Amino acid sequence: MTNVSDLPVPMSSTDLPPVERRAALPAGFAAGGLSAGIKASGGPDLAVVTSTVGPAAVAAVFTPNSFAAAPVRLSRAHLAATSGDPRGGFGWAEAVISTSGSANAATGAAGDDDQMAIAALLAEAVGTVITQTLHLSTGIIGTRLPLDKVGAGLARLVPALEATDTGLAAAAEALRTTDSVLKVATTSVDLRDTGGRPVTVTVSGVAKGVGMIHPRMATMLAMVLTDAAAAPEMLWGLLRPAAARTWDQLSVDGDTSTNDTVFLIASGASGAARVEAGSPGAATLGAAIEAVARDLARQQAADGEGASTLITAAVSGARDDAEARAVARSVISSSLVKAAAHGRDPNWGRIAGAAGNAHLADAAVLEAAGLSARDAAVRAGTPAVLDPATLRISIAGHLVFDGAQGGPVAFDRTAARQAMNAPEVVLALDLGLGAGSGEAFGCDLTEEYVIENSEYTT
Amino acid sequence: MTNVSDLPVPMSSTDLPPVERRAALPAGFAAGGLSAGIKASGGPDLAVVTSTVGPAAVAAVFTPNSFAAAPVRLSRAHLAATSGDPRGGFGWAEAVISTSGSANAATGAAGDDDQMAIAALLAEAVGTVITQTLHLSTGIIGTRLPLDKVGAGLARLVPALEATDTGLAAAAEALRTTDSVLKVATTSVDLRDTGGRPVTVTVSGVAKGVGMIHPRMATMLAMVLTDAAAAPEMLWGLLRPAAARTWDQLSVDGDTSTNDTVFLIASGASGAARVEAGSPGAATLGAAIEAVARDLARQQAADGEGASTLITAAVSGARDDAEARAVARSVISSSLVKAAAHGRDPNWGRIAGAAGNAHLADAAVLEAAGLSARDAAVRAGTPAVLDPATLRISIAGHLVFDGAQGGPVAFDRTAARQAMNAPEVVLALDLGLGAGSGEAFGCDLTEEYVIENSEYTT
Repeated sequence: MTNVSDLPVPMSSTDLPPVERRAALPAGFAAGGLSAGIKASGGPDLAVVTSTVGPAAVAAVFTPNSFAAAPVRLSRAHLAATSGDPRGGFGWAEAVISTSGSANAATGAAGDDDQMAIAALLAEAVGTVITQTLHLSTGIIGTRLPLDKVGAGLARLVPALEATDTGLAAAAEALRTTDSVLKVATTSVDLRDTGGRPVTVTVSGVAKGVGMIHPRMATMLAMVLTDAAAAPEMLWGLLRPAAARTWDQLSVDGDTSTNDTVFLIASGASGAARVEAGSPGAATLGAAIEAVARDLARQQAADGEGASTLITAAVSGARDDAEARAVARSVISSSLVKAAAHGRDPNWGRIAGAAGNAHLADAAVLEAAGLSARDAAVRAGTPAVLDPATLRISIAGHLVFDGAQGGPVAFDRTAARQAMNAPEVVLALDLGLGAGSGEAFGCDLTEEYVIENSEYTT
Repeated sequence: MTNVSDLPVPMSSTDLPPVERRAALPAGFAAGGLSAGIKASGGPDLAVVTSTVGPAAVAAVFTPNSFAAAPVRLSRAHLAATSGDPRGGFGWAEAVISTSGSANAATGAAGDDDQMAIAALLAEAVGTVITQTLHLSTGIIGTRLPLDKVGAGLARLVPALEATDTGLAAAAEALRTTDSVLKVATTSVDLRDTGGRPVTVTVSGVAKGVGMIHPRMATMLAMVLTDAAAAPEMLWGLLRPAAARTWDQLSVDGDTSTNDTVFLIASGASGAARVEAGSPGAATLGAAIEAVARDLARQQAADGEGASTLITAAVSGARDDAEARAVARSVISSSLVKAAAHGRDPNWGRIAGAAGNAHLADAAVLEAAGLSARDAAVRAGTPAVLDPATLRISIAGHLVFDGAQGGPVAFDRTAARQAMNAPEVVLALDLGLGAGSGEAFGCDLTEEYVIENSEYTT
C-alpha cells in the first residue's frame, strides 16, 4: 500500500520569483577576480566588486561568533562609520574585496592591522576613502594574509574590472574554495520609476561554502547585488528577514564560522525609484532578494562536504512561522536524520524525535525574522510546541506517520527508499496546530564528511 | 618547542567522592534481570528493581522531547499521583520495570494501554498498587511491546529477585542494548544517624546508551539507588543540579530521545537520618549522586556509537558556571571538533570557532542547575560571553592558543598528536573572565558512526 502525501509545502518556495543559476551583473557595478597567489593551489583567490556610480547602499548580516574575524569587524566598523548607526548592519560602500586561502581570523591585533592595510590599498586603487571599503575573507583560521601578494593582485585586478556578467562570474570563481560548483543565482522583477513606468531591476547573488562545512575555509560568504535603489536601512529591513528564512535555516554540520558574511548592495542604477518601507515595491524587491538567498542556500546545502543529497524540511501547520522554522531546522540538523537520508532509510522515528526536540532560534534571529525585541527575548531558545496526535510526516512524498490515525501508517517501504534515492529529499511535516510554515536546508551525513574532516590538518 | 598547559580543570572533577565501576546494591532493594524474548537477539531484556522496605522516595528527570514515550508519560503520572505534585518529578514507588527491544514510543493510545497493562502485571507480581510502579523502556520507535512475553518474564523474574550486587548487575545487563560495555558506578559516603553516629550509605547507578547514539534503542536510561533516607522533593533538589552538570552536558550526536529517563531512588534502609535541605548531609549525598551521574555520563560518552575517544571539554574562567557549561557543551557538540579528534588533529581553530558559538541551555536546564525561574527565562538560549584576547586553549595538555600572547602559540604538533592518541582527550579552555567553570563529555566522530546509522533500518 502506498500513501501518497498531500502535505503542503511552505509558502516561501512558491511565492518567490523564479531564479536562474547564472551571474548577471546589475547596472552600476564592475567586478572581477584573479589568482593573487594567496592559495597554495594557485587558483583564483582575489575578487573585487565596485560601484561605478559612487557610494552604493549596503546592508549586511555577519556571523554572531565571538571569534568574528578581522574582515568582519572592519566591515562592521565601516558600515557604522558611513551610516552613523552603531549597529554596523547598513551603510555605504564603493568597493568590496574578498580574499580566499587565509581567513584572517584569530590573528589578534596584527590581523586587524593587516586588514586595515588592505583597506588602504583597495581605497587607493579604486579612488575612494577607506571607510567606503568592505571586506570578505575565507581560509585557514590563525594564519596571516600575505599583504604583498594582495597588494600586487589588487594593482592588476582593479584596472581590469569589467561591468559584465563575466566579471561577476570571475568574482564568484575567486570566492570558491573547496566548493565543488560555482554558486550563483539571479532573478529580475519589475519596479517603477518616479513617473510610474515599469523598470526591470536585477538581483544577482554569488556565494561560497556553507557554515563550517568547508572548514579549511571556515566561511560562508555571499554578495547580493542589485540595481534597485533603496536607502541602506531599508535594504537592511529586507535582508534580515530574507536571511532569517533562508541562510539561518541552513545547516551542514552545525558549526557557525568566524567569517560568515552576507552583503546586499544596491547601486540604484536601474532608474527605478527609491524603494520605500511598506510600499509594494519593497515587497517585490524583498521577494527577489529572498529568492536569490534561498536558491544560494539550497546550492550551499546540496554542496555540503561529502553530501550526496539535499535535504529540505518543509513544515506547515505550526502555531507560527518561528516554530515551523525551529522544527524544520531541528530535523535537518539531526545527525541521525542525516545518516538515515544517506542510507535511503525512511526512518520516521528519527524525524519525529528530532522534531520533538526543536527549540526556537536565538533572540537576534527571531528579531531579524520580524518578532518584536520583547517577544524575541522571551521566546528565544524555548521549545517549539508539537502534538503527536495532530502531526503528519511524509518522506519523499510517502505519508509515513499520521497522528490522527494513531501514529505510524503503512507505506510502501521499497517505493519510499527509491524515492529517497534522489538529488533532493523533501521531509514534510504538518503539525496540525496553526498556519505557521517554514523550511530548512541540509544534506546527508556521509563517510566522506568524516574522512575529509578528520584527515585535514590546519 | 612544547608549551605545557597549566589550565585548571573544573571543580566538579576534583570535588566529588571517588567512584568504582561496579554494581553494589544498597540496603532495602532487590533486583534482577533476564531474557523475556522481547529482543530478537534473545539477550537479557527485562529488569525489575523493587524496594524491600515499602514505598521508596523517588526523584526523576525525563526527556523534554514532545514525543515522550508511553513509559515516560506513565511514570510521570504515577509520581504526580503519589506525591500530589503535578510536575511529576518526584514521589514514591515500590517497583521499577525496564524493557529493552521496543521503545513503546509514538505508539499512540494503544501504547499507553500496553504500558498500563504492564503496570498492572508488575503491581500484582510485587504486591503493590499500580501507582507505585515506574517504567523504563528502550528500543525501536513505533513498535508495540509484546505483552505476553513481558507477563511471562515478570512471572519468572519477580520471585527470583535478589538483594545482592549480582542482582543489580543482572538488571544493568538487561538495560543494555547496543552498549558495548556494562555501565555501572558506585560510591559510598558517610552520613549520620539520628544519634549523630556515622553511617555509611551507598549510591550505585546503572545506565545504558546515551542520547540517541544507539538509535535502534533510542534512549539513555539510568537508575541510581541509595539506602540514604530523604523525602522525594529533597531528592529532586539533589538530582536536578547533578543531572544539569553531568547528563545535560553529554552529547554524542545531538539527538534527544523520546525515552530518556533517570530515576534516583532512596530506600532509607541504611539507618542514616533523613537528609534535610541545606544540611551538611545534603551536600554530601548530593556530591555522591553527582559523582555517580558524572561517571555514568563519561562511560556513556566513551561508548558512543563508533567512538574511539572520550572528549572532555573543561572550561574555567567563565563569567559564571552556566556560561562555562555552554562553552563546554558547544565544543564537544561540534562535528568539526569531533572529526578533528578522530584524526588526532590539534585543530584549535575549530575549538575556538565552536566556543565562540556557544549558547546557554534552555530555561528548564538552567533552572535545574540552580538559576531562578526569572533568570533562567531571561538567559535561556543567549550567547555565552567570550573574549579572544583573554582566552587560552590547551589540547591534551599542550597550550595552543593564548589571547594575551596575540592568539596562536607555537607548540609541538607531533607531541600533541601523540597525546591525542589516547582513550580520553581533554580540551581545556580558560576564558579569563571570571570564576565560572564547567565540563562536558562527548566522543569523536568516526566513519563507523555514519555506517552504523545509515545502514540501520527501523
